Amino acid sequence: MEPNTAHGTLHVVGVGPGDPELLTVKAAKTLKAAKVIAHFCKHDKKGHARTIAEPYLAPSVRELRLAYPFTIEVAVEDPEYQRGIQRFYDACAEQLADVLAQGQDVVLLCEGEPFLYGSAMYLFDRLKERFQTVVVPGIAAMNGCWSQAQLPMTHGDDVLCVLPATLPEADLTQWLKKADAAVLMKIGRNMPKVRRALAQSGRMPEARYVERGTQANGFSQPFSDCGDTAPYFSLVLVPGRKGAR
Amino acid sequence: MEPNTAHGTLHVVGVGPGDPELLTVKAAKTLKAAKVIAHFCKHDKKGHARTIAEPYLAPSVRELRLAYPFTIEVAVEDPEYQRGIQRFYDACAEQLADVLAQGQDVVLLCEGEPFLYGSAMYLFDRLKERFQTVVVPGIAAMNGCWSQAQLPMTHGDDVLCVLPATLPEADLTQWLKKADAAVLMKIGRNMPKVRRALAQSGRMPEARYVERGTQANGFSQPFSDCGDTAPYFSLVLVPGRKGAR
Repeated sequence: MEPNTAHGTLHVVGVGPGDPELLTVKAAKTLKAAKVIAHFCKHDKKGHARTIAEPYLAPSVRELRLAYPFTIEVAVEDPEYQRGIQRFYDACAEQLADVLAQGQDVVLLCEGEPFLYGSAMYLFDRLKERFQTVVVPGIAAMNGCWSQAQLPMTHGDDVLCVLPATLPEADLTQWLKKADAAVLMKIGRNMPKVRRALAQSGRMPEARYVERGTQANGFSQPFSDCGDTAPYFSLVLVPGRKGAR
Repeated sequence: MEPNTAHGTLHVVGVGPGDPELLTVKAAKTLKAAKVIAHFCKHDKKGHARTIAEPYLAPSVRELRLAYPFTIEVAVEDPEYQRGIQRFYDACAEQLADVLAQGQDVVLLCEGEPFLYGSAMYLFDRLKERFQTVVVPGIAAMNGCWSQAQLPMTHGDDVLCVLPATLPEADLTQWLKKADAAVLMKIGRNMPKVRRALAQSGRMPEARYVERGTQANGFSQPFSDCGDTAPYFSLVLVPGRKGAR
């Protein structure tokens, strides 16, 4: 089915890792011109993407708040989580579709880079056949973090593996053994598992922890200095080993 | 050794994948304020990073051209290549150090994201102990390409592997079998090897080729429609397989 050109266009915009100056010039332009924005959030809080976008938005902008039905109340492994989250994405997509079908453009905000683990993908996937779409990339969280930590990641023929820390411990260990450079995402409550996988793979000495990278209160330190808890906005960097000169 | 604060600061700035609007707001500011820039290039051509940065530079900016001593005349496998390239980076670093030591800031341009296979890392590594440094991340080439191709890459627990196509064919095949999502970089003359690795790993059907992503003449197509040659500015995207809903 060809998109109907009388309909509005869906703009999926990456707003980068935290520092509002790490949006692209294109993203800033798109936000300034936006009449309707949409963003994911918790039911009682302003979403992180919305906070980053703040300096670029017109006071008159219309906002579609997409509030997650649950965050940590239902475990990811629970089948109810999958059913609930799919219903939620379906409902969000229809909310955007209603506005788009009226000929109005919608700018969907996404933290970091939309197509790398971004929630915006789930709405993009549901709407791309019916509406025209534009995707504006953002600085990925990992890029922002390794720049702030001043840690070059891949030289020469290094292979980089981006690993969700939600994977089983044995898988993480194997990946860390095989990778030249690695980024561990989604740390949060997986911190003890990440510690064991780094120790078992021998990658602990070079592993660096970054918390709230590029945000005002961001910092980095050797992973070995970390405790057993970490917030959602944290990741672990293991720089590449080959060709560093 | 602590950097001498009477010296200038080295700014390493990622200028993104090609579209000048895909620089960050911070990179644009840094370029506008720059009095001295440095950039890698071929001896007879304007460098790609310099071309991207053009709209943001003052007419009076001083330029340090870092012209590679060879590009394809000496094979990467030749020991003379390694010796020559190390001498070249040493000389470039000293050229920048002379200016920095005079108290002048230097802005070193880098295509895409500096710390992901960027040449700028080799100068950063040589200068970081002696001078203050700031690193401004850029949109990586792969981010620009998957956004332009409108190809979401990683959902849920997908592992992403970034693979230089310079690796041996058997290694590429193994990585492609194991990865959920993959990006093949540095395609160029490795195109026939990439084709065999995609076929052997069973990943050909979903592989997409992107040439000059986000540049004016960029395009993407299924890999299976490609011939056996590709320019330097090309890569191959294999989107993730899990949790796409």
